Amino acid sequence: MKSLEWLGNRLRFIDQTKLPAEQIYIETDDYKAVAGAIVHLGIRGAPAIGIAGAYAVVLLSYQIRNLDFKNFEERLSHGIEELKNTRPTAVNLSWALERMRNVFNENKKDTTAKIIKIMENEAITIHNEDIKMCDAIGRIGSEIIPGNAGILTHCNTGSLATGGDGTAQNVILTAYKQGKKIRVYADETRPLFQGARLTTFELMNSGIDVTLITDSTAAFVMQQNKIDLVITGADRITSYGFVANKIGTYNIASLAKMHSIPFYVAAPTSTIDLKLKEGSEIVIEERNPDEVTEYFGNRIAPPGVKVYSPAFDVTPPELISGIITEIKIAYPPFEKSLQSLFSR
Amino acid sequence: MKSLEWLGNRLRFIDQTKLPAEQIYIETDDYKAVAGAIVHLGIRGAPAIGIAGAYAVVLLSYQIRNLDFKNFEERLSHGIEELKNTRPTAVNLSWALERMRNVFNENKKDTTAKIIKIMENEAITIHNEDIKMCDAIGRIGSEIIPGNAGILTHCNTGSLATGGDGTAQNVILTAYKQGKKIRVYADETRPLFQGARLTTFELMNSGIDVTLITDSTAAFVMQQNKIDLVITGADRITSYGFVANKIGTYNIASLAKMHSIPFYVAAPTSTIDLKLKEGSEIVIEERNPDEVTEYFGNRIAPPGVKVYSPAFDVTPPELISGIITEIKIAYPPFEKSLQSLFSR
Repeated sequence: MKSLEWLGNRLRFIDQTKLPAEQIYIETDDYKAVAGAIVHLGIRGAPAIGIAGAYAVVLLSYQIRNLDFKNFEERLSHGIEELKNTRPTAVNLSWALERMRNVFNENKKDTTAKIIKIMENEAITIHNEDIKMCDAIGRIGSEIIPGNAGILTHCNTGSLATGGDGTAQNVILTAYKQGKKIRVYADETRPLFQGARLTTFELMNSGIDVTLITDSTAAFVMQQNKIDLVITGADRITSYGFVANKIGTYNIASLAKMHSIPFYVAAPTSTIDLKLKEGSEIVIEERNPDEVTEYFGNRIAPPGVKVYSPAFDVTPPELISGIITEIKIAYPPFEKSLQSLFSR
Repeated sequence: MKSLEWLGNRLRFIDQTKLPAEQIYIETDDYKAVAGAIVHLGIRGAPAIGIAGAYAVVLLSYQIRNLDFKNFEERLSHGIEELKNTRPTAVNLSWALERMRNVFNENKKDTTAKIIKIMENEAITIHNEDIKMCDAIGRIGSEIIPGNAGILTHCNTGSLATGGDGTAQNVILTAYKQGKKIRVYADETRPLFQGARLTTFELMNSGIDVTLITDSTAAFVMQQNKIDLVITGADRITSYGFVANKIGTYNIASLAKMHSIPFYVAAPTSTIDLKLKEGSEIVIEERNPDEVTEYFGNRIAPPGVKVYSPAFDVTPPELISGIITEIKIAYPPFEKSLQSLFSR
């Protein structure tokens, strides 16, 4: 299942909020529709929103191509900022948008039509790189999966979350294709149920043995020795190895430590933000309380209840066994190993 | 809000599955309606289902009062077993039902009408004892609450869960009434949202500052130093101090340990099952997968997905700072302190 497809002058994406009940594809030539989908998690997953953001810049540039250059540049710059603000925590989005801004800046002397073509190629390149990145992460990461493994994962890191076959989930998928016996426990991932809705859906489609659990059942299945390793994705990784990922990740990383279970993170190097060191430097997006208090339009909690709903939490490096990237697996101390990924 | 009320020949209870959206009271003279409500969590909370079970025995005895004694005894015994099987983990239910069986056995020589009256009085006594138990737990437990405290709790342990003002939640309520500054974080408690639906509702009605979080946000709020102590109820406690309680309790007990936060359990001595020692001896009820995969009739997960949905988990004694009972607070080593509660 392709989360994103570029149709030349339109972007096609599957509305992930409707899965698994309905498979609805949306085609749009309006960058605002893409921005809205990112905000409402119709498009989600750090790598996928990076790619979608890049394509959205191309759509915007088509939409404003008849403006004079000064206005074109202004609107483009404004649109890039608007897209960047749709989701502040995942670094892949701003990383992709900055790549788009850079190719624009490097080719300012060209005609608008030429610039747009160059930006379109850049977005396609970002997408293609992501597909290769997923393959590499799957291949490199699969070596940590034992021949017979109970694996816990959180949220969704499959093809829906990326332009290719996924990050953490592709590690599982690749190990499965290698003939390893895999049993996956998928956290449902409140409040938006990405685990229940998307991960079980993708793994079942791949033929992998998957069992759905509520998030707070994770400790109990660890206690029962059902879990040999935990693997999740990441939305932003600091140079010291602090990992921002879907709320609940720090929860299971802590529990994995307590139960002496290895905890791995799989993410492309574009997720690593060398500008940041400590976890406290990461901006944590807070979501709308309605996502916690309502479901399918039905209220779960009393009107007016106070809600704290961070979209992400931060897992400190001492809880992480290794960070699987498309280049290699970085091991502690991450301060050194992450830096070395960029100094080839 | 009274969860249960005895009306002489009928039991009145609030249907907790409908809260907080609707406050629907049900009055019944049929023990099967009570049994059904316990199964479907219309009546829930270990102490409350014990009381409801006792009243259900009285309703049954009225329903069969015209049978000859042999048939009366047979039907009564069968009904008690039927009620016991509605929820296998909480010990309060079988404890209350055995009390009812005992007063029956001790008064077999009397007329059926007399026996029924004696059983009715026993059920009312169980209920009244529970009200006093709640008061004592609140009073005794409140000493562990600092003057200014961030408290995490899980599931619902308020008046809805008991015949009185609650167990763990009454510790919080009593401390609040003593003038202590309390901030409560309530886990929503998947899959049935007792925290979101019931705990926030009761605490808001009491004027207590409460913030709703998803279950897997617990670790993150601990990391942010928002939690000074954790307090939960219990459904069964072994003589060694293993605590079976709502799924997710072991999760937060583990996290509390990792963050050096005290973890308390509040429960009446009727929850302590001296026949059991190890946690592995506790029968853990598994719930219907639909509770995880559906909500308000809408599917959250793909059809046919495998689900593991234990209703409870088991927290080992080494994670527990103290067990608050109506007699006193038992501290480790629990093997000694729990036993001493019964040898006065």
